[in-house]
Amino acid sequence: MDKQHVVGVDVGGQTSKIGVVNARGEVLAQTVIRTDTYGDDADAYLKALAAAIKACVADASVEGDVRGIGVGAPNGNYYTGQVAFAPNIAWAANKSVDFAAKLSELLDGIPVSLTNDANAAAVGEMTYGAAKGMSHFIMITLGTGVGSGIVIDGKVVYGHDGLAGELGHTCAVRNNGRQCGCGKTGCLETYCSATGVARTAREWLEASNEPSLLREVETISSKDVYDAAKAGDALARRIFDYTGRMLGRSFADFVAFSSPEAIVLFGGLARAKEYIYEPMLEAMNENLLPLWKGKIKIVFSSLKESDAAILGASALAWEL
Amino acid sequence: MDKQHVVGVDVGGQTSKIGVVNARGEVLAQTVIRTDTYGDDADAYLKALAAAIKACVADASVEGDVRGIGVGAPNGNYYTGQVAFAPNIAWAANKSVDFAAKLSELLDGIPVSLTNDANAAAVGEMTYGAAKGMSHFIMITLGTGVGSGIVIDGKVVYGHDGLAGELGHTCAVRNNGRQCGCGKTGCLETYCSATGVARTAREWLEASNEPSLLREVETISSKDVYDAAKAGDALARRIFDYTGRMLGRSFADFVAFSSPEAIVLFGGLARAKEYIYEPMLEAMNENLLPLWKGKIKIVFSSLKESDAAILGASALAWEL
Repeated sequence: MDKQHVVGVDVGGQTSKIGVVNARGEVLAQTVIRTDTYGDDADAYLKALAAAIKACVADASVEGDVRGIGVGAPNGNYYTGQVAFAPNIAWAANKSVDFAAKLSELLDGIPVSLTNDANAAAVGEMTYGAAKGMSHFIMITLGTGVGSGIVIDGKVVYGHDGLAGELGHTCAVRNNGRQCGCGKTGCLETYCSATGVARTAREWLEASNEPSLLREVETISSKDVYDAAKAGDALARRIFDYTGRMLGRSFADFVAFSSPEAIVLFGGLARAKEYIYEPMLEAMNENLLPLWKGKIKIVFSSLKESDAAILGASALAWEL
Repeated sequence: MDKQHVVGVDVGGQTSKIGVVNARGEVLAQTVIRTDTYGDDADAYLKALAAAIKACVADASVEGDVRGIGVGAPNGNYYTGQVAFAPNIAWAANKSVDFAAKLSELLDGIPVSLTNDANAAAVGEMTYGAAKGMSHFIMITLGTGVGSGIVIDGKVVYGHDGLAGELGHTCAVRNNGRQCGCGKTGCLETYCSATGVARTAREWLEASNEPSLLREVETISSKDVYDAAKAGDALARRIFDYTGRMLGRSFADFVAFSSPEAIVLFGGLARAKEYIYEPMLEAMNENLLPLWKGKIKIVFSSLKESDAAILGASALAWEL
């Protein structure tokens, strides 16, 4: 009989989430390990990951009944199973890591399928979430970085080399843009990721004497900006306005590419919906061709954040 | 027996090219009509087009043996058969025209299939030209405007509404960009189309007193800029350098979307290959993520300009 469970792994810049999923899409057991405490030692990370997967499978009491592992990872390559030159992950920032092959070896040969973390989220959203029933949409993940998964005709776009969908590294600011971890400047992710929002806060606080709750925070995170906005802080609200408008302008260019039914947002920053939605939609419509104005939806993930990525990654494993 | 011929129609901003094609992809007869002499009267244009098609079919001596008509037109919608809000075509600039249905009616019910002119060129290039054997590429047409046809997994991307692939209207210059015919500012096409190049020439001549052969030209066209560059004119060469760099920067963003094997260039301006290729490739590589640097090709159409669009459009008709 076919094995009845799969494991989904969501590799983020800071943490890696692991979940055991059954055929009905229920997450039976979950666990988390750090991604960022292994320096450039990919093998050490992979050993820790394999151990955590084994423990999670034991926790769900489904040992011997796991069909495969699906992994979503930054710069994850669906065709080669490698994670390569992922700016936000120290152990893969400057090299190619044979992630799928090595993880499979550490797990006694259980097959491993890997893709971009945002592609995995897109599959999760299409199967279980806000993009259910859509054949054309663009998933944008607003986390440590800005990721993207593009779905056309119901299929994730992998491109000629398995690495398509790096919209966080399209140009948002052409001249004197912020330095990005990828080596370029002005990338969308330097402005609109969680770290980008915190950076905007630091820059703006330095550039004026405007009073703000954020002046009391020592090391500002996007969560601090959100909390300040919620407390009515004018500067914090303008930061989200600025971030939302910048996203919306870029979305207009993405729409010109694949004409999706919707942009689907997911990730920590998407929680600031109340502050970014309006400026985002407005800026997108201002920059769309007349034929698309008012017709493209921006929707927010309806899945629990951890589940979406795990479920998406796990969906890859069913195909193994 | 199945009918053995198709007609390909390439609708451009200035002229519409018509060709009768046999099953081996040979263009048996060709003709051209103006696109831009009918004001906003779409019916008058369609009547002239139908008459020209009939004459061309008679010229090829294949009356009664035409299976269908394939049309490539700006903003042509594959799903609805309409040409809608095409900024460079007066009779469709502010409205939707039921192009396929009306043309079919004028031609005694011969079926008509329609798409974006650049999508049609992409199909032509994939079937007969520089993209033969490629499953992932982006066609960029450099004509009166800048058009695009995106091919992923061997199929043209139409998007949720049939209108995907408007990369000429992605943003090249965010602030104080040139006014575009579409109503937006800073669109790639305002800089890198044939008219964009002529506009750059006029602007630069006004902004300095630098001597240039172009100062002797009354109404500058991109052809004049090309001729001046060929004659060694420094300003004209810098114009192509500027145009090439701007294209290359935008191409880097397009690559981040679909990770194509190549960008394929086609159209009048592509003839300036000797002046735009190097700056274009250089600027693209400067703006690509490390994982793509040096790996994405820029190739030029190997088909005769008129044939490519006609053959591409005609390929649509075989599927009817």
